Amino acid sequence: MEPIRQAITVAFRFPVYFTTRVFAASNLVLRDVVSRARGLTPSRILFVLDEGVLRHHPTVITDIDEYCRQHADVLQRAAPVFVVPGGETVKNDPRHVADLHRVIHDAALCRHSYVAAIGGGAVLDAVGYAAATAHRGIRMIRVATTLLAQDDSAVGVKNGINAFGKKNYLGTFAPPFAVINDFGFLPTLSDRDWRGGLSEAVKAALIKDRGFFDLLERQAAALAARDMDIAEDVIKRSAEIHLAHIATSGDPFEMGSSRPLDFGHWAAHKLEQLTAHRLGHGEAVGVGIALDTTYSYLARFLGEADWRRIITLLQALGLAVYAPELSHRLEADADPACVLRGLDEFREHLGGRLTVMLLRGIGAAFDVHEIRRDVMIRSVELLKRVHEYEIPAQSQGSHR
Amino acid sequence: MEPIRQAITVAFRFPVYFTTRVFAASNLVLRDVVSRARGLTPSRILFVLDEGVLRHHPTVITDIDEYCRQHADVLQRAAPVFVVPGGETVKNDPRHVADLHRVIHDAALCRHSYVAAIGGGAVLDAVGYAAATAHRGIRMIRVATTLLAQDDSAVGVKNGINAFGKKNYLGTFAPPFAVINDFGFLPTLSDRDWRGGLSEAVKAALIKDRGFFDLLERQAAALAARDMDIAEDVIKRSAEIHLAHIATSGDPFEMGSSRPLDFGHWAAHKLEQLTAHRLGHGEAVGVGIALDTTYSYLARFLGEADWRRIITLLQALGLAVYAPELSHRLEADADPACVLRGLDEFREHLGGRLTVMLLRGIGAAFDVHEIRRDVMIRSVELLKRVHEYEIPAQSQGSHR
Repeated sequence: MEPIRQAITVAFRFPVYFTTRVFAASNLVLRDVVSRARGLTPSRILFVLDEGVLRHHPTVITDIDEYCRQHADVLQRAAPVFVVPGGETVKNDPRHVADLHRVIHDAALCRHSYVAAIGGGAVLDAVGYAAATAHRGIRMIRVATTLLAQDDSAVGVKNGINAFGKKNYLGTFAPPFAVINDFGFLPTLSDRDWRGGLSEAVKAALIKDRGFFDLLERQAAALAARDMDIAEDVIKRSAEIHLAHIATSGDPFEMGSSRPLDFGHWAAHKLEQLTAHRLGHGEAVGVGIALDTTYSYLARFLGEADWRRIITLLQALGLAVYAPELSHRLEADADPACVLRGLDEFREHLGGRLTVMLLRGIGAAFDVHEIRRDVMIRSVELLKRVHEYEIPAQSQGSHR
Repeated sequence: MEPIRQAITVAFRFPVYFTTRVFAASNLVLRDVVSRARGLTPSRILFVLDEGVLRHHPTVITDIDEYCRQHADVLQRAAPVFVVPGGETVKNDPRHVADLHRVIHDAALCRHSYVAAIGGGAVLDAVGYAAATAHRGIRMIRVATTLLAQDDSAVGVKNGINAFGKKNYLGTFAPPFAVINDFGFLPTLSDRDWRGGLSEAVKAALIKDRGFFDLLERQAAALAARDMDIAEDVIKRSAEIHLAHIATSGDPFEMGSSRPLDFGHWAAHKLEQLTAHRLGHGEAVGVGIALDTTYSYLARFLGEADWRRIITLLQALGLAVYAPELSHRLEADADPACVLRGLDEFREHLGGRLTVMLLRGIGAAFDVHEIRRDVMIRSVELLKRVHEYEIPAQSQGSHR
């Protein structure tokens, strides 16, 4: 007997705002986000705050409380602001998601209530996972406070936590209800977090937009010096590229094998694990970009001049292009300490056959399904020399 | 500044098969399900088995192993068959989902691998939740073995487990990769499970299809006597109604407030909790249908003749129309032991304002946003008398 063939289409829409000082009483963004939904008013909302944000912005809890008082006609704080650890800590221990579920339950949130998470990408990921699974999905508002979240992960449709030593092993695809990128939190970022945040913008430029790469090159010194006007433009452009890709790829929930937004990420995920998160995600992505760019060059897909420009830009932005863990046990690709094991872990995470994105030019990416081990080892060795001697400005012709 | 407005559309397709003895080597359904996907072959698959199925079908594990051997060109068993407790037990303790995550991880399943769950609705729900969250979603094949799963939950797009004493508090919307309804498992169902499974078919008929109700009425004695030919037709029709509703409702992931497929379910969910699952889901749904049908009648939406037909059909199918817990603390609707509290819990679970479906005729449902407490109490009292005296065949005119 022929089966019944079920076909379902689900449409998701969400706005991405760029603003400054979202919890200033005069800032209407959050008010507008909640008001545009039909339903009971005032809407009940639970705020979850990244401990790192609180440390640098000690008034944020009173700001939130005051915002809710000023806008009490549309917003009702459902519980005291709940604080969670920032960075990978919140993703590494499943207890935090269990705590979030309990807080959401005790606040009696319904599926038309809101969870607003304020923090970096890791906190948005963990809170997003908890919100997506309570009542099968409570409306999630992401208030992104780091450069890395604003130009990349916060505008996407994923959430997740780490498990079994693997990055994002548990999670769901769940578009947010709204994204609010608040530039007001950026000045208190550490220099490391600032620089790390730029790597995803470089990635977006490399795979999608040569003109954006030119801009990053021209403004590299200003970006490294934390020029806010330039940074805001860069964040918006990077977010736009990510949003456009997700909307037009035809596979926003990644049911196929390709993941074009993950250029450089197989090594980055593995390096985060190998360094026990000494490298932040953005820093690891910087190294991963350098590695796959160098592989593209040594495998003769990418010209030397473009390779040189890319490595030079990463360095000009203050991003490392090498980490010692790249060289550990490099000849022993069955060893869990070998970065090359990251290729298989990446394949397993995506599913299906290995698919790695490479470059044949700046703004011109393509997929391969095989990686030559010897060429990848030579890529690591070349980056090590670049790192030790800072030689990209010199000729590397002998390595071709 | 105007926000960027992101719009994403995600299309899901899955087949629903009706078959008998899915693990007979000559049955090509599972083979076809896996073969139709492009990708690496053979595909890796983890089987998760409902302990209750194993008890009644002790050869099923060897049948599965033999099936994989016979079809080794397309299917590779990734790990030994993993057995989980059946019924709400598997949904009540989060340890089972954690165990499933570990088994999925240890089997190195990727997002193009398969998890096939064989069991009743509770097992499909819990395994579905684990599969939907590992790697953000591994392909899930539901092999439904109970009447209740086959005619209702297995063909839907939800999964979940219980938490904080609330049914399905944690879960996701995640369409399966395929559904296989295997009639071969039905003969070993207990009489209680058989009868309970019929309630969702009655519900589908009541809200969507008067002709189907007529059929159920005509065949009530045969269904109660477990006539398999009639049952197969009823399961298919019920599954079709559920599938058509999900595909055409415009809100398959229930972002709005209405949940038309949940007629009678506010009281059912509460009764499962109040009876500590002494009542199975299907049995509780039977009582819930009786209650909201009686409310529809006493609130003068539904005529007496239709009310009488519906109650009579439920009784003819062997379904209870009343449970003593309906009457507990009925005057104290703030008491957690009062069934009326289920209205608010249902509202919270759906989100937004209270939306309850009622009947104005057989096959003619509509939504209300308010329930009169006094009329609901009278409905419980009437059902209690019906239950005690079996009086639906007599006139109930005095209660109008």
